[in-house]
Amino acid sequence: MTKYVLAPDSFKESMTANEVCQAMTVGIKQADPQAKIINVPMADGGEGTVDSMVAATHGQKIYQTVIGPLGKKIRTYYGLLGNQSTAVIEMAKASELELVPTEQRNPLLTTTYGTGQLVLDAIKNGADKIIVGLGGSATVDGGAGMAQALGAKLLNQEGKEITFGGGALANLTTIDCSKIKPALKKVQIILASDVKNPLLGPQGAAAVFGPQKGANPQMVRQLEANLKHYSNIIERDCYRKVAKVPGAGAAGGLGAGFLAFTNAVMEKGIDICIQVTKLAQKMKNADYVFTGEGGTDFQTKFGKTPYGVAQVAKKQHIPVISLAGNLGKGIDQLYQEGFTAFFSIVPGPCQLASALKEGPKNVIRTTANIVRLLQKNRARE
Amino acid sequence: MTKYVLAPDSFKESMTANEVCQAMTVGIKQADPQAKIINVPMADGGEGTVDSMVAATHGQKIYQTVIGPLGKKIRTYYGLLGNQSTAVIEMAKASELELVPTEQRNPLLTTTYGTGQLVLDAIKNGADKIIVGLGGSATVDGGAGMAQALGAKLLNQEGKEITFGGGALANLTTIDCSKIKPALKKVQIILASDVKNPLLGPQGAAAVFGPQKGANPQMVRQLEANLKHYSNIIERDCYRKVAKVPGAGAAGGLGAGFLAFTNAVMEKGIDICIQVTKLAQKMKNADYVFTGEGGTDFQTKFGKTPYGVAQVAKKQHIPVISLAGNLGKGIDQLYQEGFTAFFSIVPGPCQLASALKEGPKNVIRTTANIVRLLQKNRARE
Repeated sequence: MTKYVLAPDSFKESMTANEVCQAMTVGIKQADPQAKIINVPMADGGEGTVDSMVAATHGQKIYQTVIGPLGKKIRTYYGLLGNQSTAVIEMAKASELELVPTEQRNPLLTTTYGTGQLVLDAIKNGADKIIVGLGGSATVDGGAGMAQALGAKLLNQEGKEITFGGGALANLTTIDCSKIKPALKKVQIILASDVKNPLLGPQGAAAVFGPQKGANPQMVRQLEANLKHYSNIIERDCYRKVAKVPGAGAAGGLGAGFLAFTNAVMEKGIDICIQVTKLAQKMKNADYVFTGEGGTDFQTKFGKTPYGVAQVAKKQHIPVISLAGNLGKGIDQLYQEGFTAFFSIVPGPCQLASALKEGPKNVIRTTANIVRLLQKNRARE
Repeated sequence: MTKYVLAPDSFKESMTANEVCQAMTVGIKQADPQAKIINVPMADGGEGTVDSMVAATHGQKIYQTVIGPLGKKIRTYYGLLGNQSTAVIEMAKASELELVPTEQRNPLLTTTYGTGQLVLDAIKNGADKIIVGLGGSATVDGGAGMAQALGAKLLNQEGKEITFGGGALANLTTIDCSKIKPALKKVQIILASDVKNPLLGPQGAAAVFGPQKGANPQMVRQLEANLKHYSNIIERDCYRKVAKVPGAGAAGGLGAGFLAFTNAVMEKGIDICIQVTKLAQKMKNADYVFTGEGGTDFQTKFGKTPYGVAQVAKKQHIPVISLAGNLGKGIDQLYQEGFTAFFSIVPGPCQLASALKEGPKNVIRTTANIVRLLQKNRARE
């Protein structure tokens, strides 16, 4: 009996990691009906992280109503993993860009309040470890909204709470951290992010991520000034210097907010996922590891999901087969990193739209052919 | 040491079979530098047949000046195989569509005379067996021009030779076969064609192939009438009934001409190629066979090149890996025919034009990845 471990990332805009696992399973079974298959859908802290980790650990989704990025209530969810004590939150599920219609995208107004609410709810549900996936946010509020949800008092000259959004940070005069819920102290928070941007400057949250969230150049300058002001107040009132920490600029400065108001640490998303899913353990005695992602090229070696998976497999000397919708430049550099072979799943020249739509079918076909080859090869030895 | 036999067809409009072999070789060597590689470029009687067979048998190309389809002299070539006694002629190299500018495409005028000249030249050069690849012709002259080149007298009412082209057949009143060069009797002629069309009728040479050679509906009717008249005269003067023979309609009726004026037999192009190249013998003790073609789908099982190759490999229980620029519907039906696995060579969504242009690069990458997988797999057993 041949053992296969399936640990793909999502194929963006085509399949979730779980759907990729399902398609790979169908393909493997076609060629090797006796196969033993272990599904470990992966994620890098971005979209799909909750779903993947919940699926991989047989955990559960917990639904909750929170304040959305525009200040209106939204229904969303986070994950409680199989161990019942680790929660996984995608900040994007509470404060994401897709929740905001294009014409209303205005990071002067959007808030991370909902993300803070999810953190509190996770604690209430017994989590003593919370993984927060940064990325995909609609906000540039430096995590101020999240801090408010956790209990911090962000006050203006009149001693009143400032309103939501990166614009209101201009009115901030004092932060009172003593009001943060005490429960936060007993919780380990791990920020999952692959972004190394600092809070301020040309590589900062406003300059780099502001425009894609709807900020025009003038708004970017305003947000930059406000975040600077905000980090100065944090330094004065909370005794933390967060502006230059790599990753502080992630999710519109939500990274900085967590670093300022909690004991959060940052880790690479894929490394967290590998740990949480016990990937190395699941790979024991596997004959093959399948991974994959929407597009693979030289950038994959900078810590993308299949790279992390290959690193784990390499230590156990297991061949790694990586699928992609598109194979770009520089995949040759990846062979020494644990990858055995790369295959594109598309059947021939085609439009992107049809490739995205036919992802599952293409994964099934490609996987089946690979496994047919491997099985035939073994039969001959 | 692993032994690979490479027996691909051409990838139409992208690579000759020989170029596919070269690219596969580069890919294999990247993954398995010690590989033993046997190149057997294949062909089905169409474009590339001479080049493939010459390459596979270490034969030579023989250049000759003949009368082209429009009656003007052209420089072309045929092949003398490594055994020095078998010649390979592509009728398309003397009488092909691409030799005729679009605006001059008129099958009332185009002739197969040059093909007959090549047959004679091959005999003069010692061939006692001549393979003629049909297909790609610009002509619908029923092989009348070819017959004239061989010495047959095709005469009009005044006892003069009729002129070139399917139109002039209307003037034919007598055929004198006694003047055909006696050397023809000692030569075995094998027509390589996958076309089963008869000379006449709705599936005949004029109706099916006339339009793509520049015939309008009126010309098609005229050509049909002329071919009927021609086959009646053949029956009366040469005692052969060729009109209904499957394949007689190939190459604008050149099939009928060969059947009428020589002792030619018809065979499937790929079967001839397998025989001539001694493919089965070369496969002995091979670990893997690679084949491929531009596009693979359910039609491949109707005798296309990879199918023929897979049949040979199947008898020797050798895994067959088939590459294609495009994988279409129904490849599942091919697994029971000796194919182990199919892979598309394209790296992702792309335009046809770029896929055609990047064929060699894509074959190299895909082959290298397949062989990496096979090698790794073997190393673990």
